[in-house]
Amino acid sequence: MKKDNTSKLRIIPLGGLEQIGMNITAFEYEDSIVVVDCGLAFPEDDMLGIDLVIPDVTYLKNNIDKVKGFVITHGHEDHIGALPYVLKEVNVPVYATKLTIGLIENKLKEHGLLRTTKRKTIRHGQSINLGAFRIEFIKTNHSIADAAALAIYSPAGTVVHTGDFKVDYTPVFGDAIDLQRFAEIGKKGVLALMCDSTNAERPGFTMSERTVGHTIDGLFAEHSNSRIIIATFASNVDRVQQIIYSAYKFGRKVVVEGRSMVNVISTAQELGYIQIPENTLIDIEQMKNYSDEQLVLITTGSQGESMAALSRMAAHLHKKVSIKPGDTVIFSSNPIPGNEKAVSNIINDLSEQGADVIFQNVHVSGHACQEEIKLIYSLLKPRYSIPVHGEYRHLKAHAGIAQSLGIPKENIFMMHSGDVLSLDENGAELAVGQAPTGAIMVDGLGVGDVGNIVLRDRQHLSEDGIMVVVLTLEKRSNQLLAGPDIVSRGFVYVRESEDLMGEAREVVEDALDACLNRRISDWGKIKSAVKDALGDFVWKRTKRRPMILPIIMEA
Amino acid sequence: MKKDNTSKLRIIPLGGLEQIGMNITAFEYEDSIVVVDCGLAFPEDDMLGIDLVIPDVTYLKNNIDKVKGFVITHGHEDHIGALPYVLKEVNVPVYATKLTIGLIENKLKEHGLLRTTKRKTIRHGQSINLGAFRIEFIKTNHSIADAAALAIYSPAGTVVHTGDFKVDYTPVFGDAIDLQRFAEIGKKGVLALMCDSTNAERPGFTMSERTVGHTIDGLFAEHSNSRIIIATFASNVDRVQQIIYSAYKFGRKVVVEGRSMVNVISTAQELGYIQIPENTLIDIEQMKNYSDEQLVLITTGSQGESMAALSRMAAHLHKKVSIKPGDTVIFSSNPIPGNEKAVSNIINDLSEQGADVIFQNVHVSGHACQEEIKLIYSLLKPRYSIPVHGEYRHLKAHAGIAQSLGIPKENIFMMHSGDVLSLDENGAELAVGQAPTGAIMVDGLGVGDVGNIVLRDRQHLSEDGIMVVVLTLEKRSNQLLAGPDIVSRGFVYVRESEDLMGEAREVVEDALDACLNRRISDWGKIKSAVKDALGDFVWKRTKRRPMILPIIMEA
Repeated sequence: MKKDNTSKLRIIPLGGLEQIGMNITAFEYEDSIVVVDCGLAFPEDDMLGIDLVIPDVTYLKNNIDKVKGFVITHGHEDHIGALPYVLKEVNVPVYATKLTIGLIENKLKEHGLLRTTKRKTIRHGQSINLGAFRIEFIKTNHSIADAAALAIYSPAGTVVHTGDFKVDYTPVFGDAIDLQRFAEIGKKGVLALMCDSTNAERPGFTMSERTVGHTIDGLFAEHSNSRIIIATFASNVDRVQQIIYSAYKFGRKVVVEGRSMVNVISTAQELGYIQIPENTLIDIEQMKNYSDEQLVLITTGSQGESMAALSRMAAHLHKKVSIKPGDTVIFSSNPIPGNEKAVSNIINDLSEQGADVIFQNVHVSGHACQEEIKLIYSLLKPRYSIPVHGEYRHLKAHAGIAQSLGIPKENIFMMHSGDVLSLDENGAELAVGQAPTGAIMVDGLGVGDVGNIVLRDRQHLSEDGIMVVVLTLEKRSNQLLAGPDIVSRGFVYVRESEDLMGEAREVVEDALDACLNRRISDWGKIKSAVKDALGDFVWKRTKRRPMILPIIMEA
Repeated sequence: MKKDNTSKLRIIPLGGLEQIGMNITAFEYEDSIVVVDCGLAFPEDDMLGIDLVIPDVTYLKNNIDKVKGFVITHGHEDHIGALPYVLKEVNVPVYATKLTIGLIENKLKEHGLLRTTKRKTIRHGQSINLGAFRIEFIKTNHSIADAAALAIYSPAGTVVHTGDFKVDYTPVFGDAIDLQRFAEIGKKGVLALMCDSTNAERPGFTMSERTVGHTIDGLFAEHSNSRIIIATFASNVDRVQQIIYSAYKFGRKVVVEGRSMVNVISTAQELGYIQIPENTLIDIEQMKNYSDEQLVLITTGSQGESMAALSRMAAHLHKKVSIKPGDTVIFSSNPIPGNEKAVSNIINDLSEQGADVIFQNVHVSGHACQEEIKLIYSLLKPRYSIPVHGEYRHLKAHAGIAQSLGIPKENIFMMHSGDVLSLDENGAELAVGQAPTGAIMVDGLGVGDVGNIVLRDRQHLSEDGIMVVVLTLEKRSNQLLAGPDIVSRGFVYVRESEDLMGEAREVVEDALDACLNRRISDWGKIKSAVKDALGDFVWKRTKRRPMILPIIMEA
């Protein structure tokens, strides 16, 4: 029992359900705040032209004196990607394991923040004190090395946050998840568990990463006469490690291709997270010295990204490698939801180039399935369950699992961004939408200067294009001095539409005459009249609604 | 043996691989052409604003005297959808089975073509003579009733075209596929087989449609206390039939919702393809007279289409039905490739409204898997194999199956649109890209008036918006009378960008001054100078490239 129960722990997701990927959660106790993760989201289909999306951290800025630091679970973009943006506004220390710090440093370098950002490497099993909190990093397994769960100790109780994880009894690199430590912490009493929901709809156990190595060995044996090209996630260092082992075993040289792949592998190699046997890695320029059956290319592009190395190879746009008949192309990946069509298109392209394409069962997930989630609950025995990481359907499936393990429905909280959960041993209370949150869109150098109006305009422009109507009126008299000229883009072929454009001009002239006859001199009204008349005419003739932009100049 | 071998049969796909869905193939022998199917494709992701895509039938127009008619395998959009557009240019009779003709007539009605189009209903087992050809309609099974394979008899030999098909020994409506007839035709000798490749990557057999009925019965039993909403494909009449049977069995009333669903079911009911027990179907207005557990809604929207009934119900935009906690929503469908994300989004929406969402294993495919494809080959024993229907990867998998059955590689042809395969018993020869073909985009009323330039502009506009620069120059002197004014849309919030716009105006003024100082009077050159200067400035400041549209007026 604690001595003082006046203060509660507050858990506040600042991103999450509304924008999958923007993982960032504030833990607040009295005058201390620690923030778990700081991820970015990739734009939804309707965010035209947007590069990425980062969380609104107004809540942290408003409480800047309390904020003690960021503690990061692992080095994936959806957990570290927003750091360089957020650190510019909330400059506090960053704590993470070694590889994660390495990947964060790559980002800080790009943004010129390396000098101004305090950071500290934490070992698994180690704890740090941040204000009223103690945070312990616990070894887990995931599709990137050095992932950690966090035990967040506060005077109001202990919360365990798993981060993204799976249970891998036979990991490729390093130790298995520290289940004993989970059990110990559970024995001492856990107030709340925030556990990965990504695979909560899938029964059973996720297979060990090591099983993929066996599959890859089998494929190398089977395709011993052809060049092998394997696409996988740049950040999956263990996968790349296993491909390199297979290559070594079968006497092939390895070429690593694609910018993000090269970056991650370099960092992993510097920090000792990947072992590359001597004389195995060769430069892409050296490929010509080897025959096809002596080569493996490990490449980006497993999600069908049009600018990634694999797509460029398939389209003969890559400067150094082109797909040719007889190549074996292996997708060691599954399509991320939303990428299925792009991946299928690249499989078609590769097939048509004559490649033998293998895209099934050369991948395992990095996330816990139902039985693993149950295992963690059974070790920790939390009083409250807060499903995290995943879409609503996944959180709901997770809630179902928690209930099946005996956690009462009222002790399970599916939180949206900005919700505040206040809890201690005496109870938990959810206040909806208390903290300011939001998704800030990044487009080029612009952070937050593209909003819904701009997006709506882009959507409109993308569907039917634009017609610009310009005319010059004489000061005071409002007599037409020049125009109306009509210029369109994205609407219709000009040569197909000469008649249409001629008639459109007449429609605009009539609308103008009507205004002038009625002595309307207000430009806003003239513009509206032009817009309405032209819009109606175009809709009747084409059943399309281009954006109509009237511009009146004064001379 | 045939008497005269001078003429060959020519097979010419006029759509297909390049545009999945645009199924249309010409069969030509001397002065006769028959065309199998006339489908449309839905726009690819990069065809912004396009409604649908139809085949270029220049080849048919150029040979109009030879064209005897369209023979249609079944009533799906990708086999009949382009008919109303193509018939306007190639007005020949249409031959199909009863339900297929019914669905085609719905389309002809919409386009005002009912009077001018000759059409004839053909029974399974019946043959028609079209010039040098005899065409026999053979019963098959598919995810729409009344599907037919076609035996195309020509003096050069017999080609069997399966259309889309599966082998269903226990169909819900009508007979199983006529395997005996396939065997008879095979016994007499088949020159070439054009067989459905959609599921050629999938091992085994596709399950019978009837199995879905058992699943639905089970779900009705399990969810007897809640309102049930089932989304499925509008054209899958047998699926709707089974849902209605289950509803009847469990004493529920049925509401059919969604325009295309209502249309297809009406046609199917009129033609006797669906049996609705009396007092089972009710109007949506009558729903209020029944309690939740007395109701089933069958609805469109199983692909997550944003305007379909189910999406509107989930978003509370549907006028008569809103999803509420306790509803059971069943997806009796799988996402079509490319729709996965949209389907997942609607599952999330429905879950968040409190519905229990069931989306796995309440569907079977309408296409033959590997063992069914092998069965058809084994019955027909064709000399040549022409895999059809599917993406390249599917055709390639199909080719693999054909080879495994002993068809030599050189007798297998994977054809692109416009390729011409000339064949008879003495041989087959592929001439690549001989016939004019293409994809014509339909946008509103415009057929073919949107091309690559317009699409490229729409793409550009969608990513970074547009900046319009207008200025008025004096005739002859080229002195600036008005402007430059800059108006942007889809680029950046105006209030965020006041400085930027002010500076941009200065940049344009400088560029103009430079032109006038150098006595450049050519408007093309002035526009280029403005465009380049402004483009560079905006890129440096924002790392974005809006379309820049300079307009010069003369006064």
